Amino acid sequence: MDTNNMQWTLAARAEKMNPSVIREILKVTEKPGIISFAGGLPSPKTFPISDFADACAKVLREDGQAALQYAASEGYAPLREMVAASLPWQVDPAQVLITTGSQQGLDLLAKILIDKGSPILVETPTYLGALQAFTPMEPQVISVASDDDGIDVNDLAMKARGGRFLYVLPNFQNPTGRTMSEARRAALSAKAAELGLPIIEDNPYGDLWFDAPPPLPLSARNPDGCLYLGSFSKVLAPGLRLGFLVAPKALYPKLLQAKQAADLHSPGFNQRMIAEVMKDGFLDRHVPTIRALYKSQRDAMLAALKREMPEGVSWNTPDGGMFLWARLPAGMSAVELLPKAVEKNVAFVPGSAFYADNADARTLRLSFVTASVDQINTGVAALAAAIRESQPTQARATTSVGANSVEAK
Amino acid sequence: MDTNNMQWTLAARAEKMNPSVIREILKVTEKPGIISFAGGLPSPKTFPISDFADACAKVLREDGQAALQYAASEGYAPLREMVAASLPWQVDPAQVLITTGSQQGLDLLAKILIDKGSPILVETPTYLGALQAFTPMEPQVISVASDDDGIDVNDLAMKARGGRFLYVLPNFQNPTGRTMSEARRAALSAKAAELGLPIIEDNPYGDLWFDAPPPLPLSARNPDGCLYLGSFSKVLAPGLRLGFLVAPKALYPKLLQAKQAADLHSPGFNQRMIAEVMKDGFLDRHVPTIRALYKSQRDAMLAALKREMPEGVSWNTPDGGMFLWARLPAGMSAVELLPKAVEKNVAFVPGSAFYADNADARTLRLSFVTASVDQINTGVAALAAAIRESQPTQARATTSVGANSVEAK
Repeated sequence: MDTNNMQWTLAARAEKMNPSVIREILKVTEKPGIISFAGGLPSPKTFPISDFADACAKVLREDGQAALQYAASEGYAPLREMVAASLPWQVDPAQVLITTGSQQGLDLLAKILIDKGSPILVETPTYLGALQAFTPMEPQVISVASDDDGIDVNDLAMKARGGRFLYVLPNFQNPTGRTMSEARRAALSAKAAELGLPIIEDNPYGDLWFDAPPPLPLSARNPDGCLYLGSFSKVLAPGLRLGFLVAPKALYPKLLQAKQAADLHSPGFNQRMIAEVMKDGFLDRHVPTIRALYKSQRDAMLAALKREMPEGVSWNTPDGGMFLWARLPAGMSAVELLPKAVEKNVAFVPGSAFYADNADARTLRLSFVTASVDQINTGVAALAAAIRESQPTQARATTSVGANSVEAK
Repeated sequence: MDTNNMQWTLAARAEKMNPSVIREILKVTEKPGIISFAGGLPSPKTFPISDFADACAKVLREDGQAALQYAASEGYAPLREMVAASLPWQVDPAQVLITTGSQQGLDLLAKILIDKGSPILVETPTYLGALQAFTPMEPQVISVASDDDGIDVNDLAMKARGGRFLYVLPNFQNPTGRTMSEARRAALSAKAAELGLPIIEDNPYGDLWFDAPPPLPLSARNPDGCLYLGSFSKVLAPGLRLGFLVAPKALYPKLLQAKQAADLHSPGFNQRMIAEVMKDGFLDRHVPTIRALYKSQRDAMLAALKREMPEGVSWNTPDGGMFLWARLPAGMSAVELLPKAVEKNVAFVPGSAFYADNADARTLRLSFVTASVDQINTGVAALAAAIRESQPTQARATTSVGANSVEAK
């Protein structure tokens, strides 16, 4: 029998799929003792392990057969009710679909909303995992300019024609840590309604604010025009792989069919664990401890950056979340810096990973939540040393050197 | 602000997606006290609840932070090693991808192997969930004739030209309960190799044999020509949503990228629970108890069918698994019978749900694993009564009435 002529033929979309740049970087940086600002990993200190242990035992003791059986694709009803009740606008639990992480929400909506060649609009830069989820459906990705207040509404208006949706992450964005201002949200909501442009609002980090909650979600302003994605990964634990989406009622049936086809349903056992842990207001007590921890780590990183970084390096001050966005002096490339930083036992993600096109090669994403304060101090000093050693001579002398000509090499 | 002109546009593939016929039927049949032969639900009596409780406690105590953190898309390494070691051919753990139920394996392979319009070949009838997973990628589904020994290799050869793959479920098939014979497997393997036709081998039920194990998997005969799907749902519990696929090394990277995009990874906590329960040969002790239970329930159903069914009703004798395939007398339709059966408090799935085309309206799928032996006796008697009351007068007089003319009405 000739078994070597099997004609496996890949779909055209598979050719467009690529390994996660971040996951490849994380592999490179997995050397012992490295201080990583690269991963988007919540601090494991925040995982309520003993509460989960109690919840597991109770769920298996009191509801074990149902928790371990096949279940409804929509999700566990009490959890859907908790989600609906937690949101700051009127949501019917029937609009809530429990997903296998909010990443799955992106996969499902891509399936039902993107045809090959469909224009879809994204912030610049944007969450890499969203681009990965959309890519298999072969959209035409259109990058919309953004600034520190969020997406540029005028640029959006010029590019929106025929767009299937705009994908935005308004709170403590991944990768930039930026929050869309109230004025920008109001302007975006009005413009999207005027254009008839649906919005996909991804909000995994919204609960992780430091001093004040972020402005009201876009979905609260126009529920029928928005599809909202949320996650339990950042407030409880990512290893249970549970998130949710809230959909306009007209879209829900198709998302549900896509969910059935994708994995039948998300694990009922995990849904019950989370519902058990969350009841009686657990998050009201637990999430403030995460906020306090992450704020102290952000402050440590800001202080270390101020203390250590050479002139010409800039960064922002996120009001919540997990990430800070920095920019190297003119003439430098974060991709070229990375191996030199790894040599000094510190890792980050080059910002260029997060652009659909026209990447700013000088940017980098720094997570301040996984490393301890001591590690942040050591790591930022090492990163600063790597930057100093990598600076081109001209750039060291003056930061006004033409960035584009150097980056183009 | 006008919020009512939002232009949600569905992708063309979404129009082709449909609610699961079975899930719709299950909703209809969810009336209190009904005896259901409809669902494909394992008996919850077989779930090793106390073993899971011990495993949860141990995993959270000894490895809680890692179990609750983000993890590798490939899956938990010890579990991948256990899977590879359990299979009856040489499998490298690097070929094993842990999936969110084996349903997700179908979704992932559809994404990387099916272009719009790609011919794909399936048994007749076939697993409905596979058709649902393939449909969003818009294949041209080609039904290949099957008999009690499995797929008709001559019919396959006539239809295979240009096919991306053949999807088969060789052991205790869903819906028919049929097992592909050794001779048919040998012939199919040889023909597929000759044609260069890849095979997707789905094997969720293979461990549930009653008297003797089924013949060697197709994948063992031609590992480079087969993609193999397995599941923990039928030997441990479906509510943890874990399965796996074993892929030729050339295909693995694209499946992994599809997995990353779909849900990043399957829950690490659940993977550790299952690895913890399975170590030390647990399945060698546990699975025989499932086999014995399901065999006794199959026997009860066979005895009840023989005792209760009117002349003209036929059924098969599955050698394992969860389902039995029955056929009504000429002139009858299982879809029309269903509401009458539900009136008598018994439910089943009409076989027509499992055909891509040219459905045999007389067929029905009966699960013998969810209901107890007492319920099987009561339910089969009620089903027989519904059949007798529904038989057309001519058919009651003679079973040789033209089936097609009656079914066409």
